[in-house]
Amino acid sequence: MNIVEKFARLGTDHAPGQEGLQKDEELPIIGEKIEGCMVDFSHGDVNAHTPIPGSLETFVKEYAVEGTYQAYTEYRGKGTIRRYLAEKLAAYSGAPVDPDTEIILTPGTQGALFLAMGSLVGSGDKVAIVEPDYFDNRKLVEFFEGEIVPVQMRWKDAARHTSGIDLQQLEDAFQSGVKLFLYSNPNNPTGAVYSPEEVAAIGRLAKKYHVAILADELYSRQIFDKDQTYTHLRALEEKPDTLITIMGPSKTESLSGFRLGVGYGTPEIITRMEKLQAVVSLRCSGYCQSAFLNWFSEPEGWMEKRVAEHKRIRDDLLAVINKCPGCWARPTEGGSYLFLQLPPLKVDIFQFVKFCRVQANVTVTPGTEFGKQYSDFVRMNFSQDHDKAVSAVGRICEMVERYRA
Amino acid sequence: MNIVEKFARLGTDHAPGQEGLQKDEELPIIGEKIEGCMVDFSHGDVNAHTPIPGSLETFVKEYAVEGTYQAYTEYRGKGTIRRYLAEKLAAYSGAPVDPDTEIILTPGTQGALFLAMGSLVGSGDKVAIVEPDYFDNRKLVEFFEGEIVPVQMRWKDAARHTSGIDLQQLEDAFQSGVKLFLYSNPNNPTGAVYSPEEVAAIGRLAKKYHVAILADELYSRQIFDKDQTYTHLRALEEKPDTLITIMGPSKTESLSGFRLGVGYGTPEIITRMEKLQAVVSLRCSGYCQSAFLNWFSEPEGWMEKRVAEHKRIRDDLLAVINKCPGCWARPTEGGSYLFLQLPPLKVDIFQFVKFCRVQANVTVTPGTEFGKQYSDFVRMNFSQDHDKAVSAVGRICEMVERYRA
Repeated sequence: MNIVEKFARLGTDHAPGQEGLQKDEELPIIGEKIEGCMVDFSHGDVNAHTPIPGSLETFVKEYAVEGTYQAYTEYRGKGTIRRYLAEKLAAYSGAPVDPDTEIILTPGTQGALFLAMGSLVGSGDKVAIVEPDYFDNRKLVEFFEGEIVPVQMRWKDAARHTSGIDLQQLEDAFQSGVKLFLYSNPNNPTGAVYSPEEVAAIGRLAKKYHVAILADELYSRQIFDKDQTYTHLRALEEKPDTLITIMGPSKTESLSGFRLGVGYGTPEIITRMEKLQAVVSLRCSGYCQSAFLNWFSEPEGWMEKRVAEHKRIRDDLLAVINKCPGCWARPTEGGSYLFLQLPPLKVDIFQFVKFCRVQANVTVTPGTEFGKQYSDFVRMNFSQDHDKAVSAVGRICEMVERYRA
Repeated sequence: MNIVEKFARLGTDHAPGQEGLQKDEELPIIGEKIEGCMVDFSHGDVNAHTPIPGSLETFVKEYAVEGTYQAYTEYRGKGTIRRYLAEKLAAYSGAPVDPDTEIILTPGTQGALFLAMGSLVGSGDKVAIVEPDYFDNRKLVEFFEGEIVPVQMRWKDAARHTSGIDLQQLEDAFQSGVKLFLYSNPNNPTGAVYSPEEVAAIGRLAKKYHVAILADELYSRQIFDKDQTYTHLRALEEKPDTLITIMGPSKTESLSGFRLGVGYGTPEIITRMEKLQAVVSLRCSGYCQSAFLNWFSEPEGWMEKRVAEHKRIRDDLLAVINKCPGCWARPTEGGSYLFLQLPPLKVDIFQFVKFCRVQANVTVTPGTEFGKQYSDFVRMNFSQDHDKAVSAVGRICEMVERYRA
């Protein structure tokens, strides 16, 4: 594959936040504009849900106190911050983390994902990925010239508190020579959380077939129901030999503007990730690293309140969705996404998404970003102002009526 | 090449800032410790030469005024900041820059280098690189599985204000099917600046043989002598069809802790770079992007003073070096590096570098990072406190005496 073909496959025009780059076409628009405040469901609104209190203040204080010494940290991140986070993440995930060998600070969780993929996927390697799952998983396998082996997640039919991952298909994939399996838990875009049994099965199979695991736990602090269990693979007896967990404070905690993430796990892979970081961007911004110190040290009750606010938005959006015939979404168990299935429409999903933006002032992400077969879905990040979001999802339903087949 | 081999070649232990990761060995140490303040010549001291005044204030003000809206910018960077920089860079480099299509903001200039290389180098592509030049150039070609075609720069024998690049060798390389040529100007590590004729010849040859050019101009604002001309390839008639220029405020302007860089040039390549950024780290930190607004808007006289301070350090270090028999460095014409040649020693360059750190409290980078043949060189970044640096280079000379063959 030459470089032109490689980039032709690495499309971003439909990716969240990139909608402004799409070219205008003549469209068979039906009806007038529907008035309402602009809502961009492609990512969270960090003005509606602001960063952890004190984050800017920590940034300024560390900049002032430490002077500019922290401009140049080790490529894997500043030692004091790695030690702080190793302790917090060990307590959080239920298994120890060595701050010297088992953790790397990265520019956002995306940075951790990229470095881990670059460290684990060689040309021609088979990589199992869940469908549906985060769209960049697929793009990264392609970029590193691996071979995608899809594994279905039957979230639509699965019992509550299970993801519905097809474990037989997973074992078949592993048996066929897969080198790496990556999955997000809670799942992006469906909001399904894997059951303890599912996570244990993933670990057991990975151990049996010597498959490396990349666990994306970005949204794992935002779990809605009291009876929901969240399972960290790294704390289980079934923990595989090669395991990297990635996470960061960009979502629930709204620190996305600082670009902070972590990868933690198998020392050999962390070392590779650091080697790669050394040529990619050297390090996570030295000044921004200080804002990590607010993560896992939020004011008392702050996280609970944030999660409760999101639960309320989820419930109120679902109430609107459930009134629209043919519209359906599984109630999000973790994270800020609703993966909304639409009834048959007169237009394709890209046109519908465009019309929503142009006519109804609402931006959503087409389901095809998460797997070609999801051409009747859109993803919505409901980390938004409550009232604006409720109104916007009402406008989406109005658009569904207009364009219903 | 499998992934293990790939990473075995991507060594970082001798890279600047990573010295703490080296294992202790039993060493044939001669003599006692030489007292003196620790000086780390592997990178600049941003406490001795602090960031552009007002950078932190801009960060805080934009964070407050814009609220958290700038957390999510387009992958290529926030529009207002791209427009600001496009205007400044057009004036600086002498040719227009379209803010919509010809510029991308990146996490440091390293980020721009990585994205440009990833966008221009496919597996098996021949890439011409200068020897000596920035160590990551070589690593990036290897990471993207290109083939390195070295081109010698005879800076030791070259006339003042010329780099001494071997233009015949460059043409031979281009003729052999090279796809990309990259060069840093001022050259890292030697501090040589390319003459207008040399830069024009590069452009002419690139046009003739359809070679893409990546021009690293990171240090181009720090030129020491009044009679020195600096030539931006992009402003010449000989400008090649595919050209990316990279730069950033991390060095002379000391904003390295914010991780800010830019790539600008051929729209098609900028688009690829953005696609790649979308999977690497999404964007240059949204909050940090605001600090770009201080770049090229420094207080009057501030840049002139900064350059003059560095010139004084350069001259005073050279005075010490020139008194030590067998030690030699070409006077830096641009940038903050001295590439110091040492006389024959009883120990190899890695041992010498370690002894300097352990015995003399001075960190330098072994010349082999810039090409295997430079095993009698060390690189020093002299953006340091003047007095400490003069003392430290004196200690290096003392170490040379101890270990002289």
